[in-house]
Amino acid sequence: MKRKDYLQNPVKHIKINGTLTVDQLMRQFQGSGSFGAGRLARACNIYEKMLRDKDCTVFLALSGAVVPAGMRALVADLIRARLVDVIVSTGASMVHDAIETLNGHHYKGSWMADDRELYRYHIFRIYDVFVAEEDYVKLDYQLAEMYREIATERNGESISSNEFAWELGKRLKDPNSILRAAYEENVPIFIPAVRDSEFGYIHLLHASQEKQKNILKVDAFKDVPRICEICGKSPRNGMVVIGGGVPRNTVQSAAIAAKKGMDYAVVITMDRPETGGLSGSTLRETVSWGKVKGEADKIMVIGDALVMFPLIVASVVERLGSEFMRTPYLKRGKPAVRRSK
Amino acid sequence: MKRKDYLQNPVKHIKINGTLTVDQLMRQFQGSGSFGAGRLARACNIYEKMLRDKDCTVFLALSGAVVPAGMRALVADLIRARLVDVIVSTGASMVHDAIETLNGHHYKGSWMADDRELYRYHIFRIYDVFVAEEDYVKLDYQLAEMYREIATERNGESISSNEFAWELGKRLKDPNSILRAAYEENVPIFIPAVRDSEFGYIHLLHASQEKQKNILKVDAFKDVPRICEICGKSPRNGMVVIGGGVPRNTVQSAAIAAKKGMDYAVVITMDRPETGGLSGSTLRETVSWGKVKGEADKIMVIGDALVMFPLIVASVVERLGSEFMRTPYLKRGKPAVRRSK
Amino acid sequence: MKRKDYLQNPVKHIKINGTLTVDQLMRQFQGSGSFGAGRLARACNIYEKMLRDKDCTVFLALSGAVVPAGMRALVADLIRARLVDVIVSTGASMVHDAIETLNGHHYKGSWMADDRELYRYHIFRIYDVFVAEEDYVKLDYQLAEMYREIATERNGESISSNEFAWELGKRLKDPNSILRAAYEENVPIFIPAVRDSEFGYIHLLHASQEKQKNILKVDAFKDVPRICEICGKSPRNGMVVIGGGVPRNTVQSAAIAAKKGMDYAVVITMDRPETGGLSGSTLRETVSWGKVKGEADKIMVIGDALVMFPLIVASVVERLGSEFMRTPYLKRGKPAVRRSK
Amino acid sequence: MKRKDYLQNPVKHIKINGTLTVDQLMRQFQGSGSFGAGRLARACNIYEKMLRDKDCTVFLALSGAVVPAGMRALVADLIRARLVDVIVSTGASMVHDAIETLNGHHYKGSWMADDRELYRYHIFRIYDVFVAEEDYVKLDYQLAEMYREIATERNGESISSNEFAWELGKRLKDPNSILRAAYEENVPIFIPAVRDSEFGYIHLLHASQEKQKNILKVDAFKDVPRICEICGKSPRNGMVVIGGGVPRNTVQSAAIAAKKGMDYAVVITMDRPETGGLSGSTLRETVSWGKVKGEADKIMVIGDALVMFPLIVASVVERLGSEFMRTPYLKRGKPAVRRSK
Repeated sequence: MKRKDYLQNPVKHIKINGTLTVDQLMRQFQGSGSFGAGRLARACNIYEKMLRDKDCTVFLALSGAVVPAGMRALVADLIRARLVDVIVSTGASMVHDAIETLNGHHYKGSWMADDRELYRYHIFRIYDVFVAEEDYVKLDYQLAEMYREIATERNGESISSNEFAWELGKRLKDPNSILRAAYEENVPIFIPAVRDSEFGYIHLLHASQEKQKNILKVDAFKDVPRICEICGKSPRNGMVVIGGGVPRNTVQSAAIAAKKGMDYAVVITMDRPETGGLSGSTLRETVSWGKVKGEADKIMVIGDALVMFPLIVASVVERLGSEFMRTPYLKRGKPAVRRSK
Repeated sequence: MKRKDYLQNPVKHIKINGTLTVDQLMRQFQGSGSFGAGRLARACNIYEKMLRDKDCTVFLALSGAVVPAGMRALVADLIRARLVDVIVSTGASMVHDAIETLNGHHYKGSWMADDRELYRYHIFRIYDVFVAEEDYVKLDYQLAEMYREIATERNGESISSNEFAWELGKRLKDPNSILRAAYEENVPIFIPAVRDSEFGYIHLLHASQEKQKNILKVDAFKDVPRICEICGKSPRNGMVVIGGGVPRNTVQSAAIAAKKGMDYAVVITMDRPETGGLSGSTLRETVSWGKVKGEADKIMVIGDALVMFPLIVASVVERLGSEFMRTPYLKRGKPAVRRSK
Repeated sequence: MKRKDYLQNPVKHIKINGTLTVDQLMRQFQGSGSFGAGRLARACNIYEKMLRDKDCTVFLALSGAVVPAGMRALVADLIRARLVDVIVSTGASMVHDAIETLNGHHYKGSWMADDRELYRYHIFRIYDVFVAEEDYVKLDYQLAEMYREIATERNGESISSNEFAWELGKRLKDPNSILRAAYEENVPIFIPAVRDSEFGYIHLLHASQEKQKNILKVDAFKDVPRICEICGKSPRNGMVVIGGGVPRNTVQSAAIAAKKGMDYAVVITMDRPETGGLSGSTLRETVSWGKVKGEADKIMVIGDALVMFPLIVASVVERLGSEFMRTPYLKRGKPAVRRSK
Repeated sequence: MKRKDYLQNPVKHIKINGTLTVDQLMRQFQGSGSFGAGRLARACNIYEKMLRDKDCTVFLALSGAVVPAGMRALVADLIRARLVDVIVSTGASMVHDAIETLNGHHYKGSWMADDRELYRYHIFRIYDVFVAEEDYVKLDYQLAEMYREIATERNGESISSNEFAWELGKRLKDPNSILRAAYEENVPIFIPAVRDSEFGYIHLLHASQEKQKNILKVDAFKDVPRICEICGKSPRNGMVVIGGGVPRNTVQSAAIAAKKGMDYAVVITMDRPETGGLSGSTLRETVSWGKVKGEADKIMVIGDALVMFPLIVASVVERLGSEFMRTPYLKRGKPAVRRSK
């Protein structure tokens, strides 16, 4: 590289002299181009590209407290607008979604609250959000009932984590529910660590009610071929990762197994690479594994996903326009992957 | 609180005027008492207390790249010395353990390496550690063979993630292996997200080899009652968490389900609470849920677990002395929890 | 506090169903209210309150690479619109401002660049921004000339860091310059560590040119009474801190010395409290010192200031409307603090 | 690079089977070699190399709450053992040092304390350390008296920040004091932002007492040629940075001005590069500026300096042995730089 090649694009300074739309500000970030602002602007561009690429399947990996953070309707709307094709989630986020569907709530609280008092009051704290134990209890009994129904229908057969999510979505009738939207729109939700959440406790309750007769069985490995197949059949794949953990790893592993490194990748996280953990690993590192292609459009945004992701979505929705969003799935020419029942 | 109560313990300044043992330095950190050094010193004290409490079951939650970081023998030795009673792990750490057992290696590398070149060379990068793909391939075929064996023995029955770990440990003969040590010492290893790792890919391979005949089945929920039972029957419980993620959550959820908040807790992490994720949540927050008792001895160490944990172990081993370590399990009066077959 | 008091405000879920202005999204963040999004929304509210409070002096503390990040015009505009009354800055940011004024540039680059090659090419890297050494050299000689002029005018008298900034602003004619805008609008800029930047190197050059005759003297302590007086005379004070370091500490120390804890405080940083450093210290901690009032409106936003601050400014500018911005200083009834010559 | 070159050094696993000295553990970290443990081990090696290099001047940059953290005697001992040649510090650390010299204290406290109550009690909080306001008041009056003495002796002449530190060290008689040890051992302490600390407030007090007659003058730029000269005359230079901020920047800037990039560099910080700030900037980035040589031995340790630095010192002291430490300065053949009066 020659010297002058390094000195081509002067930073353009941000001007805020009146009301700006979210995308107008993101485009200014692109012009300034540096540090976190430049990364965020690139994330908007890459997510837009994924959506405009008719041959791309978009995987959304969800970890962290997505629903308590107020992103439940946002994710449900992304599903309904077909701005995401596959979801991989922790169990907890789907539990939180189900709680709200069953008229439970997450409440704005404070991280300074007295946790011993909260314990006595049977209120659970998620940083600065509160949930009442009674909403969990309500969930436990209603879902245990659903487990029984599903087990009866399946008649001893083991199901996969995505079938489990689909069965719940079928029974949860709230249109703002992520599980419901995914059921209606035939967007598969994979929950690779389904046992590590209230779903596991509910299974204990369910098993104690059923006394060995008719127990719901979820096969830990049964969702593996499904997600690999989706990834493998799609001409191109993109991922948007909120946080990291099991959801990020599952998406990336599907890409390896399918021998289809991601073509687009946006990761939003506060984790860093230095400790060697998966959640903070760079997208450059994923290239060595074949999880993401060397030539992929990719960016890692260092920040709170619960701020960054709505900014990205707002920017991209503004770019696509409302017409784009309403276009039905088949017209959008998405890869003809048959989604999970 | 009166004014003078705040001003009781002056910080004692660290003196390094010759060779110090690890514990001597940790005890100086206790005297200085502040910031990270004070937290680390408290972690040593709490882990020591757990071990000296004859009625306490010690849970070790492992996430992050424990084996590539050089902690394989350390964890195996902890198991053999009975300094840990139950392990909850990611799949990846057990995969890494198995790779080394089958004569594979993790190599010291560089995070600056050219990942596209690594990809062409079939070398995988974990921050500054390299692994050769051929070691994974060797693993895949040997473990697929074990899957077949286990499936044959179990004859269609689903097993739990801890039985899965136990079956592997039975077949992996290296004394430095974590899985082997746990098998020999009857220490259960739970892998709640077993599917989210090479174990999942190996299952694909195994299934393709078996063509529906004799497929190993791991039931996602089957380990739930087991870990809850261990926690519930133990008079007291303590946890040492390396990282966060599913392993931390699984241990804490067992404590809720068993209605036995942890009595001791050490969490070592670089994650922070502000984004609302589980991995960075404070131990204070866990009190509201009943995961950890309000009056528990507990500390969160903010740091790289792969530095901090060996420091804690070295300090505590020094305190306990070699005699303590050799004392067999039953004499140590550990809770008479029957460990998993 | 009663149980029901904890469960008052359900989280409202974000809806993005078309183009949103920045403030519309920030207001949705306020409704969702949790984690980083809630903190950011509160920061918007608090900055708005400072500006609407006619008796409040607004201190802006600048650390980090503000100008290379593209915020030069933004800060200059804030000064001209009287949305900030006093600036405390590192030397580096004012150096970067002066470089652009003298037709130098910051260029969009890459953090992956080969730094040895950059060194050979005399290109400096600031994360993913490049600067040519020749722009520094140009700066050095032109500023050394200004130093000589100032020294001549001052005739041996020591000046304060804010007088130094004012003298530079007088000589730098670019309307987009922060130093120029501050000079024209009579907004004092304090540079408490002025020596720790290219200004220090330029002083070496200047001294070698002058050979002891006519050397510019900046008195390290001379700006202390000035900033304390501004804080002390103002009925109320607010601070917006970008980053931390010396600028944050200087503003907070002025508040103590003036016995006027801040009434409003917004701190945007990626630093955390656990290591005991000032930059990551919580606003709660500042209350013990009297730096910020216990009852102050205050929030700490954990994030990249170069993303967060433009969001806050865009949101607040939208709320205030263009008329508010154009209102001249005296009509806005700002505290009649005489600003620095 | 050939494929096999990547796969040369298998990770050696840590074994803790009895009491270990600090250096024995650090050497094991070197064998394991990865992530934070590998970085820490390299930092020990590099600091050892600096000390064994008879032609190297060692700069120690101090930011953060070094003294409240219990490192006061440690730094004083390093000075007396000639394990550091030049110190660059924030004002605050020298203030904290002076407080203890004047029989004030830092107390072990809690970060959970009620800051409003602390405020009423006139107790200041530094994360989990408390200081009584009365210790500051005592300091203020005694140092104001010293300021008067120094001003009288200097008779209107401006002094540099390092002369200021030297004058204080002359008057503070505690052998455990950093300022005193540096005075006695003729190790210069630079305080580039001296005004940004209690030293600034004391100047206000001093000026009010003196009423314009005899005011201590510290010239902001006067220490610049001194530190550049030390760096320039030394055949080789090394830096150990605790934290970042102004102290790190001042050392690095001296290296540029002297056209002598550092030959050795250890930086211990929790800051990260992504926001573009100096404190988190990588050592690779410093190469583009000529602050650190491309071929320098250098490492960045991500961690709490107040844990990491004592580990490094203990490890290196163990390696050097007590004889090395007692060797007087001239015999050690340190560069014959004349230190500051």
